[in-house]
Amino acid sequence: MSKVETMKPQLEPGYLVGIDIGGTNLRLALANTAGAIVSRWSTTVAGHRSSEAIVHLIRTGIENLLRQASLPWSALKAVAAGAPGITNVDSGVVIVTSYLLGWRDVPLRNLLETATGVPAAVDNDVNLAALGESRMGAAQDSPDFVFLAIGTGIGAGIITNGKLLRGSSWAAGEIGYMLVPGAPDEPVERGKPGPLEGMIGGEGIRSQWQQLWKSTATSLPHDANATQIFDAALKGDPLAQTILQQTARLLCYALLNVSLVLNCPLFVLGGGVGIHPALLDATQRNLERWSGRTPVQLRPSVLAADAQLRGAICLALETLHARDSQGRMDLPL
Amino acid sequence: MSKVETMKPQLEPGYLVGIDIGGTNLRLALANTAGAIVSRWSTTVAGHRSSEAIVHLIRTGIENLLRQASLPWSALKAVAAGAPGITNVDSGVVIVTSYLLGWRDVPLRNLLETATGVPAAVDNDVNLAALGESRMGAAQDSPDFVFLAIGTGIGAGIITNGKLLRGSSWAAGEIGYMLVPGAPDEPVERGKPGPLEGMIGGEGIRSQWQQLWKSTATSLPHDANATQIFDAALKGDPLAQTILQQTARLLCYALLNVSLVLNCPLFVLGGGVGIHPALLDATQRNLERWSGRTPVQLRPSVLAADAQLRGAICLALETLHARDSQGRMDLPL
Repeated sequence: MSKVETMKPQLEPGYLVGIDIGGTNLRLALANTAGAIVSRWSTTVAGHRSSEAIVHLIRTGIENLLRQASLPWSALKAVAAGAPGITNVDSGVVIVTSYLLGWRDVPLRNLLETATGVPAAVDNDVNLAALGESRMGAAQDSPDFVFLAIGTGIGAGIITNGKLLRGSSWAAGEIGYMLVPGAPDEPVERGKPGPLEGMIGGEGIRSQWQQLWKSTATSLPHDANATQIFDAALKGDPLAQTILQQTARLLCYALLNVSLVLNCPLFVLGGGVGIHPALLDATQRNLERWSGRTPVQLRPSVLAADAQLRGAICLALETLHARDSQGRMDLPL
Repeated sequence: MSKVETMKPQLEPGYLVGIDIGGTNLRLALANTAGAIVSRWSTTVAGHRSSEAIVHLIRTGIENLLRQASLPWSALKAVAAGAPGITNVDSGVVIVTSYLLGWRDVPLRNLLETATGVPAAVDNDVNLAALGESRMGAAQDSPDFVFLAIGTGIGAGIITNGKLLRGSSWAAGEIGYMLVPGAPDEPVERGKPGPLEGMIGGEGIRSQWQQLWKSTATSLPHDANATQIFDAALKGDPLAQTILQQTARLLCYALLNVSLVLNCPLFVLGGGVGIHPALLDATQRNLERWSGRTPVQLRPSVLAADAQLRGAICLALETLHARDSQGRMDLPL
């Protein structure tokens, strides 16, 4: 081997871990440097929601993933995690999460780097889902789009010119508090769901359902969830159709308002509730009634439940490449 | 003089013209390269609203300005114009304006360069006002803010990281169509004012006033304008106070919605109606009721009626500097 070749740094085959921290589940995926998922691991976080407990679970998960793939720890090159909260991506600190985790000012990136010994990055989970859809999902052709997630709650990740729009205090896209016709217009207590979230988030849809529920109006039980309600709407259940139409109308208002501000041509709907075909369809029909000079295009998430995890893998890859080029510059000539 | 000195390009003292094209008036200002206004010229555009007629008026105005300042045409180095419409700043084409001008796809930059023989730039008027407030007005300390203009209609210019956010088809900030509680929630015909504009734009406020007007409820006439109504509200006129409170509440909703999307900490209120102290005060009080995790700060425009014109001068300066550095690169070594 010539001297020149030995001086050229070699990229040894490496692996990444993407991490999706949820209010109920923790999910990890091991991927190669082409971004392909090699294996997965998940666990419940019930009773283990402190940041220390979560990071301990993550460490356990990575050990499992590497063992499954017969890889040594040294094969791990970078990790990235999405957390359901407002996150300062520069400092790597999760500023605040919802009550489910109850975190305040958690230095998650440092905790992950200490636990793993490799470079780490963190971001808001919906932002990571938007990144995933942008790089390998429903919006690969669009440098400007908004990923809108409807799960238990709602949130949006905004991509302009191919990059995440962060906002001055890392809270861009927190549209659960948006004020639209048909949603309450009274101020909401801190920590409570916002007016829009209280109507069209998964929990909000349940609560709307329970307020209108009468055994004579539906064959569904009082404690049906949003997905069951939308399924029943497709089959013609009258009360379920009422709730579906109300949700679609308010979602349409929110999409229009966001698109007026940003002049954004494409929305990708995701999240456990947001990907329901009945909701997509009903919202699309509302949007058509309103389409003005700039029609708004609506697509379902392609990555579905994997959007956050795929986004985390993309972020881990970007972290690895950033550190890698940094490392190369530090090499002696 | 040494050979080296003769080869170094000298910046000869030059002048710029900023142009504010309105639906009723055309205003020009001559400025030096420090951005200071040297003289002003204005005229009505009634009966002269075609792009050819406006550009002819602009040429006449520049001749007048240069004559007033005893300057030759060669002293003019760049011009920039703001037009009340959606503008492609890359191609220099005004895509569409409101019915007052009725322009469609006007290549305004080319027309101005042909008429003046100097580099020209064009932008939307509210974007230019935002640029003015950013560079020499109320938001010089803030890289992220939204300028919201209320005149006959409404519009917003969005600055993120010190730069204008354009949107995918140059229409970011066209919030007149925003849907908020208390404004109509039915689709609007193309070309008609949007639901929010129809309530809180200057013309919308007049029309709200006329709908509620009864001679027993107010001392103001049926055809009062927004400024007269807000003046009367300050003096305790009951109907005027009702209209002021309604306008302030809806404006507060719009500000909150924009700030939720962008996570923007500062709004600057401008435009003939928007700068009224009664509106600022009443809107501020509404915002305080709603202030959540991220309070929204509200400031009046500092540049007031000059915001667009000052922004146009800033844009002309930036155009001159861009062409100047381009020119320098073209010099033979």
